[in-house]
Amino acid sequence: MKSIQATTYSIDFQDKGYEQLSNLIERKKYSTLFILVDENTFEHCYPKFIQNFKTTKSLEMIKITSGEINKNLETCIRVWNAITELGGDRKSLLITLGGGVITDLGGFVASCFKRGIDFVNIPTTLLSMVDASVGGKTGVDLGVLKNQIGVFSNPEMVLIDTEYLTTVSEREIKSGMAEIIKYGLTYDIKLFNKIKQYKSLNISDLIFRSIEIKNNVVQQDPKEQNIRKILNFGHTLGHAIESFFLESENKKNLTHGEAIAIGMVCESYLSSKLLGFSFEKVTEIKNVILTIYDKTTLLKDDFHKIMELLKHDKKNINGQVNFVLLNDYEDYQLNCKVPVNLIESSMEFYNS
Amino acid sequence: MKSIQATTYSIDFQDKGYEQLSNLIERKKYSTLFILVDENTFEHCYPKFIQNFKTTKSLEMIKITSGEINKNLETCIRVWNAITELGGDRKSLLITLGGGVITDLGGFVASCFKRGIDFVNIPTTLLSMVDASVGGKTGVDLGVLKNQIGVFSNPEMVLIDTEYLTTVSEREIKSGMAEIIKYGLTYDIKLFNKIKQYKSLNISDLIFRSIEIKNNVVQQDPKEQNIRKILNFGHTLGHAIESFFLESENKKNLTHGEAIAIGMVCESYLSSKLLGFSFEKVTEIKNVILTIYDKTTLLKDDFHKIMELLKHDKKNINGQVNFVLLNDYEDYQLNCKVPVNLIESSMEFYNS
Repeated sequence: MKSIQATTYSIDFQDKGYEQLSNLIERKKYSTLFILVDENTFEHCYPKFIQNFKTTKSLEMIKITSGEINKNLETCIRVWNAITELGGDRKSLLITLGGGVITDLGGFVASCFKRGIDFVNIPTTLLSMVDASVGGKTGVDLGVLKNQIGVFSNPEMVLIDTEYLTTVSEREIKSGMAEIIKYGLTYDIKLFNKIKQYKSLNISDLIFRSIEIKNNVVQQDPKEQNIRKILNFGHTLGHAIESFFLESENKKNLTHGEAIAIGMVCESYLSSKLLGFSFEKVTEIKNVILTIYDKTTLLKDDFHKIMELLKHDKKNINGQVNFVLLNDYEDYQLNCKVPVNLIESSMEFYNS
Repeated sequence: MKSIQATTYSIDFQDKGYEQLSNLIERKKYSTLFILVDENTFEHCYPKFIQNFKTTKSLEMIKITSGEINKNLETCIRVWNAITELGGDRKSLLITLGGGVITDLGGFVASCFKRGIDFVNIPTTLLSMVDASVGGKTGVDLGVLKNQIGVFSNPEMVLIDTEYLTTVSEREIKSGMAEIIKYGLTYDIKLFNKIKQYKSLNISDLIFRSIEIKNNVVQQDPKEQNIRKILNFGHTLGHAIESFFLESENKKNLTHGEAIAIGMVCESYLSSKLLGFSFEKVTEIKNVILTIYDKTTLLKDDFHKIMELLKHDKKNINGQVNFVLLNDYEDYQLNCKVPVNLIESSMEFYNS
């Protein structure tokens, strides 16, 4: 599979990726190599990585505990201390091997260690392959507020090896699928049409096309001033719903994709109410999503808590929540203001 | 006094500075203004600031506890939480009003909040005026390791008002003087010659020239690949000495300048031993420094602890400590390797 060229780095696939990684390490003459894993990627991905990775340098492993709940500054401090104790310096390289928590947190850790060392992302989940590892966003959560603290910073390269997907659960795969649906709805409806045949998909093709789309969008607008905002479709409400379930002790946690899928149903509904997006298409989106994801119940009592969390969305300006909505498939409108009661109706629509 | 133009921002002095700040706020249409102070600058500088600062926007104050000991990630987390609770968003502005701890930490906090909001530095100590507020370095300490965590990020402007210097102690003024001596020795010996007349100095002129020098150096080499390293003269050993006194519970803390002054004496000595820098000049430097600063005693027993801390210097590569040394006044050599026993001799020379 050919490589995808981003601004200052490339996304390389399968064997080519490992080759490029070895070349990079050779070329940049790193003083020390670190690899960041969690207990899952240590067990399931690290052995595959080591099999494929050729280097004469020693590799120091740093292991953190998996889960969004650990994507915070306390974990960063532990990793910074570990790198320090293991003799990391400005010419060190940090390789991240894991899902979005590892790639986002690892990228942030690298970008701030001694004011920035190089890092390479090796995403191991579908979500991190199609989303978290491309686009220069790094960061961690502050309390329940997702990615509140971070910087824009690009890796030296991204290595995609779909073999790692055999190590994750179907629920994890579905979590990544939500982002692919988003790329389909906002940018390439052919991609969405492919996903309708959920059982007979060529995952490598979907990943390649998704990264290609994300890369196109990000190159046009690295700092999210305009078109990049389409990547937030489904995420404004989706993030609030995800945070709500994360902080509710008596509720199951949703995966990122499960929350974003709900967000996309709601925001499609808002699109139909505010921009005349076809209601038939809203229904189609809801049906496709409910074929893939179990239905979650949003209690009416919880609506106001979700609304409260919406106030902290990073895209808000002057306390005003900003939505990206659809005029049609592949045709979006940025910075839409939505009345509170309509947001509640959209959640009722999802429930119905 | 005319403004100094840095890459993407300007350093403005006295009344012109307040005018430029109002213009900036007008032009950028910030959603909310925050000002970061500590208990000292709240009491002594904030009233002066408010007198001079004209805006119709409301200004939210965030107060932290003063001192290098609080320049850490725990304080950052408190400030990030405060900004969040006070409704900060991506279009907020953070004004830092204080010494190097406030400007370094505040710049880092701003650069990471929602992946970066604008900030303006108003340094209130001599040290932060001539050093910390110019050059794009932001950061905090990790344990005793100074500025281990940070990013390169430029403020929107820097406002220098020498009136704030009336609020700080003579010890603080002397702390800043060490950086001016450094600029003199490495870049402009006329500046060093002026400092020899320590009692009859025009401080505004020294500040202006120091910022001009730092700005020249930083513009040539923003990421510290080559010439910017001269700003580390006296700092390699100086930082280790500063960290050592900070972590020794039974010793008084040194100011940054006091530690750097010792570092410059030692590194001048190393220059004479390794590069043939005139020993007469080494003696002159030591004499000028001991006229300004009280003598500190470095115990022989403590040498190895200081050497241990040297190993964590951010400039080290492959565990090798890198010094900037002098061939002559205004003539430096980067990346000098120094044998351990010679480093110890240099501390003995300071003691002698």
